[in-house]
Amino acid sequence: MSTPTPDHVVPATDEVVHFDFDRTRDAVVTVEPGDVVQFECRDATNGQLGPDATVEDVLAMEVEGHALTGPVDVAGAEPGDAIEVEILDLDHEGWGVSYFYPGEQGWGLLDDEFPDAGFHTWDLEGDTAHFGHGIEVPIHAFPGVVGLAPDEPGPHDTTPPRRVGGNLDVKHLTEGATLALPVEVDGGRLSVGDCHAAQGDGEVCVTGIEAPMTVTVRVGLREDARLEGPEFDTAGPFTPTGADEPMHATTGVADDLMRASEQAVSRMVAHLSVERGLTREEAYVLCSAVVDLKVNQVVDRPNWTVSAYLPESVFPE
Amino acid sequence: MSTPTPDHVVPATDEVVHFDFDRTRDAVVTVEPGDVVQFECRDATNGQLGPDATVEDVLAMEVEGHALTGPVDVAGAEPGDAIEVEILDLDHEGWGVSYFYPGEQGWGLLDDEFPDAGFHTWDLEGDTAHFGHGIEVPIHAFPGVVGLAPDEPGPHDTTPPRRVGGNLDVKHLTEGATLALPVEVDGGRLSVGDCHAAQGDGEVCVTGIEAPMTVTVRVGLREDARLEGPEFDTAGPFTPTGADEPMHATTGVADDLMRASEQAVSRMVAHLSVERGLTREEAYVLCSAVVDLKVNQVVDRPNWTVSAYLPESVFPE
Repeated sequence: MSTPTPDHVVPATDEVVHFDFDRTRDAVVTVEPGDVVQFECRDATNGQLGPDATVEDVLAMEVEGHALTGPVDVAGAEPGDAIEVEILDLDHEGWGVSYFYPGEQGWGLLDDEFPDAGFHTWDLEGDTAHFGHGIEVPIHAFPGVVGLAPDEPGPHDTTPPRRVGGNLDVKHLTEGATLALPVEVDGGRLSVGDCHAAQGDGEVCVTGIEAPMTVTVRVGLREDARLEGPEFDTAGPFTPTGADEPMHATTGVADDLMRASEQAVSRMVAHLSVERGLTREEAYVLCSAVVDLKVNQVVDRPNWTVSAYLPESVFPE
Repeated sequence: MSTPTPDHVVPATDEVVHFDFDRTRDAVVTVEPGDVVQFECRDATNGQLGPDATVEDVLAMEVEGHALTGPVDVAGAEPGDAIEVEILDLDHEGWGVSYFYPGEQGWGLLDDEFPDAGFHTWDLEGDTAHFGHGIEVPIHAFPGVVGLAPDEPGPHDTTPPRRVGGNLDVKHLTEGATLALPVEVDGGRLSVGDCHAAQGDGEVCVTGIEAPMTVTVRVGLREDARLEGPEFDTAGPFTPTGADEPMHATTGVADDLMRASEQAVSRMVAHLSVERGLTREEAYVLCSAVVDLKVNQVVDRPNWTVSAYLPESVFPE
């Protein structure tokens, strides 16, 4: 299926790129329901971390919010409606990066185990992301941020997702998926950005494979949908290969889902170091890019089960 | 692949079936690493809820722990080793049940929304579980409980899983999967039970498709494995069909993973009621049997994202 010619192109110019959600930001363009809109998206750091960056650049980075493109208004959208975003196409530029921050800034799941910063460059070639060591991750690209402006006066930090979407980091918002978001302000004020070439469920080190991309979507309007929060339809992929494949899994057992998640990922980092010869930093980044956190059960009180699933298919041979 | 003839059959007799983990319980049999062992497993309620049961039976049920078969010792197993359990085959008896408890006993994710008990019978036919309304769920059977005796003096409640396994409720422990558990007492004291014909990641109403089954496994011993907790290898299935397929998902956004899970499932129950015409009770049970909870991200402070994924393939047409 070829991507339709866009009705509108929203460029990633300094006038358009923004770093917060705010209902008072004027829309770049107002589109009709059914229109195809192309968002040119910078990488989330607004170019601070390119493919040749280093750990020093991570430490020097000024985080002011994700670099987002938009906002776009949908004609007729009003509170109570839902704006639908059908993902048609994502085009990368041949590179991606993963990184994590140290200490105070540290937002990764395993901050205590990783007191220093880390940085990793990926070569993106067609449908494959090359990690190094022969490890190849299929590219299943998606925008980490797809969000509307909250009704509450802003500006609002881009980091936490909200009822109106935003930094959802749902890896299944790939080509063919449709996300529906509840509208809180007239027009909706849709912003897109933070594209990832791939990501594991959890995004445990705080980044996927971060990359600038061009995102083409079809925008729809569902009147009076009365959604309580984000919903989406997707056909995955639910594994890197799109079919059942061998996985190695580590299981966390704890009376708190976050602690169970930490256990599972901590032991997966150890597994990747011992069994696959990666440095711990490489292992942490690879977990963030390909390892999926699944909630096995939330009912066997007082202990819940969360497992981290590593697809074996990303390794050579 | 045909199932190998078992070296040992452990029957579900009153002498063998037990309802707790306890290191002082004598093993029924000591097997050699590599032996094939068949566990005859009653349903978890020890026959209190058969296919003709009612909500009244759920209310009258005395919960004393999962009915487990075993324990089996593995010759030579000692603390520091890991016992491996390769799942070879599960055979059901043509029926399964799902249920949830009310109020005080209530252990489901949505207790507040479901103050009454619920009960549902499934017809199991070959590889298919029939829910009713034309809804068919592929059978991917697994034992909910596979566990060793903890070192700590017992008896120990069977409900919470532990470092040594137990009620893990990992739906991917299907035929072909291998679970490794850290040994804490000599011989290991392996018990098996609580079989499910299918379950969603989360087991949100507190039961999968609960059924008596015969479970055939190959037992292995990994000396000095020094596992910190359960690990497993599996090839899924990761979707009901074993390949990418359409899913509808509801997304919870909250600063607590459990609350995000509740949001997602509550909205999925509403979706199933409104869009698919199920009663809310049917919807809750179906969620527990086929809807998967995935942790989309755990790093976008202060709000995490958890989505509930409903496979469309279980519905008619």
